[in-house]
Amino acid sequence: TNRLKIATIPGDGIGREVVPEGMRVLEAVGRRFDIAFQFDEVDWSCDYYKKHGRMMPENGLDQFRQHDAVFLGAVGWPEVPDHVSLWGLLIPIRRDFNQYVNLRPVRLLKGTTSPLANRGPEDIDFYVVRENVEGEYSEAGGRLYRGTENELAIQESIFTRRGVDRVLRYAFELARTRPRKQVTSATKSNGIIHTMPFWDERFAAMKADYPDIATSQYHIDILCAHFVQHPDWFDVVVGSNLFGDILSDLGPAVAGSIGIAPSANINPEGDFPSMFEPVHGSAPDIAGKGIANPIGQIWSAAMMLEHLGHKDAADAVIAAMETVIADPASRTRDMGGKAGTAECGEAIASVI
Amino acid sequence: TNRLKIATIPGDGIGREVVPEGMRVLEAVGRRFDIAFQFDEVDWSCDYYKKHGRMMPENGLDQFRQHDAVFLGAVGWPEVPDHVSLWGLLIPIRRDFNQYVNLRPVRLLKGTTSPLANRGPEDIDFYVVRENVEGEYSEAGGRLYRGTENELAIQESIFTRRGVDRVLRYAFELARTRPRKQVTSATKSNGIIHTMPFWDERFAAMKADYPDIATSQYHIDILCAHFVQHPDWFDVVVGSNLFGDILSDLGPAVAGSIGIAPSANINPEGDFPSMFEPVHGSAPDIAGKGIANPIGQIWSAAMMLEHLGHKDAADAVIAAMETVIADPASRTRDMGGKAGTAECGEAIASVI
Ligand SMILES: CC(C)[C@H](C(=O)O)[C@@H](O)C(=O)O
Ligand SMILES: CC(C)[C@H](C(=O)O)[C@@H](O)C(=O)O
Repeated sequence: TNRLKIATIPGDGIGREVVPEGMRVLEAVGRRFDIAFQFDEVDWSCDYYKKHGRMMPENGLDQFRQHDAVFLGAVGWPEVPDHVSLWGLLIPIRRDFNQYVNLRPVRLLKGTTSPLANRGPEDIDFYVVRENVEGEYSEAGGRLYRGTENELAIQESIFTRRGVDRVLRYAFELARTRPRKQVTSATKSNGIIHTMPFWDERFAAMKADYPDIATSQYHIDILCAHFVQHPDWFDVVVGSNLFGDILSDLGPAVAGSIGIAPSANINPEGDFPSMFEPVHGSAPDIAGKGIANPIGQIWSAAMMLEHLGHKDAADAVIAAMETVIADPASRTRDMGGKAGTAECGEAIASVI
Repeated sequence: TNRLKIATIPGDGIGREVVPEGMRVLEAVGRRFDIAFQFDEVDWSCDYYKKHGRMMPENGLDQFRQHDAVFLGAVGWPEVPDHVSLWGLLIPIRRDFNQYVNLRPVRLLKGTTSPLANRGPEDIDFYVVRENVEGEYSEAGGRLYRGTENELAIQESIFTRRGVDRVLRYAFELARTRPRKQVTSATKSNGIIHTMPFWDERFAAMKADYPDIATSQYHIDILCAHFVQHPDWFDVVVGSNLFGDILSDLGPAVAGSIGIAPSANINPEGDFPSMFEPVHGSAPDIAGKGIANPIGQIWSAAMMLEHLGHKDAADAVIAAMETVIADPASRTRDMGGKAGTAECGEAIASVI
């Protein structure tokens, strides 16, 4: 038997409804592939913040350093400003555990529909590789002349050679495992003149190490346009923290999977656990009703299994997901069905 | 007779082919509406750079300070790095002439097709209002440890209260002229924690001055997704220099008008001329062949006429454009026709 220790953080809103479904599916696939899960759950969240004045205990992450992975639901709730809740929980995990790659598959799944005309599953199948710990998201910066007419705010974006190179390398290595072997870089070196020309230089240097990989680069504005017009052009798309964030929401929107997209926050060296979470948020409007779609969480569980070396278990989860999506009776409302969160999760577990 | 003094800068590549068509259409509409144009043309461009080591003469802009408007084609050519050509010509015009609003209509024109399934002209009709002189595009920043393993690049984004307020005010005033009276703000205050929460504060303050305008705000990542899924939600969308740039390419892509979209760089106070240019670039791949689509330039001419107080002349240009687009024989290749640049321009002029 394979044993996996998973830290679970349901977090806020529908996170608490979909994480249990992810666990249910993991248990099911574990029975089939002989994997035993130990789930260690914590209640870090905006509720926790309201009680304790912080999103998680000081040194809270220490207890998970030896875990195999973190399985997270959603963070954020209306009464707590986003930059407090996210910078108090989600972003510290990404940073303290050095999860410098955020990986998001963009796929038009069978049984789902893209908002684009005349596009099928064969047209949309790529990955967005996002830098996840530096760049435009930075604590450096501040305000001057606060509260006066002369007020101004400064935000520093910081790109290091080490930080850029390692995420580019990850993208090129990923492309090597794919049939089309292409990497596209997101830039804006015509407008953002200090960091983006630097990014381009590092991309050019990295590409020299990978003569077997075809490359292209586009400014983020036109790249967003190409996602809509030519999603079939892309294989692996790599971008900075902000550009990767934008592209990894736009990609799923184009693929019709924004509500069910998964993501992996990866520490490639494995010196800290990686974290797996759906792209959607805590969805206050539907939270507590038992109608949230658990597929983003379950797809994230599949990414976790693959990352931990259980590719066949991951494939079994995705296959079960596709079977269930194809059946209107097991779909949740957002996908035109009537099933509740638990029914959808049970359906997937029972297919497995 | 109304007299208008227009500075024309064809610039690079297809800019030189489409600007003359814009002028042709302006002459035609001038005859009908009694407007006499004086065009003063300069050859500032990447060619100019190759000869003189700069994109335009020092103090070059002085000669146009009293002009009514600048009519620009495209700037940029492969051998000259973009951040040189653009920061040597396009961006100085925007900044020296204090064109702090970049206005771009997003419309599904009759006769064109959106890449989205089941969307018609009534679904896509909004404006993107982009901050155009500060924010993420800044000369502040630089490199440390250049050429070593420890190299890093810093880019500062700078948002001032005056700079943010005036573009927000423009957006709210624009919304007042529209039937739906809505403003949507693009933010990212959950990730970019110094400047974007500031932007949100200013948006909240401005909104208090406009109780008649409905508002919403979205993080840029999900806003891009909404452009694809719900383009019918939007009326006036306001964003920072970078976010506005992204949205004003994505919007036209969704509307199927990326190759023909116009833009206005506006100095609302009128103390300097405003500038009108198509969104497309110099298109080196098709430059010199006489096949470029002149509609973006001609639509920009219409925006210029409207800005200069000739709304009926502007409407006549747009109506002629739509008539010509509806006729496959006068369309250029990118729109599925066979007409050349000049034929398309002539067709529009003769409809007028
Ligand atoms: C050419 C580039 C600097 C420019 C910008 O980003 O402002 C362009 O993309 C535009 O939108 O006008
Ligand atoms: C919640 C927010 C800070 C986060 C981000 O931008 O990183 C989210 O959009 C994501 O993509 O995971």
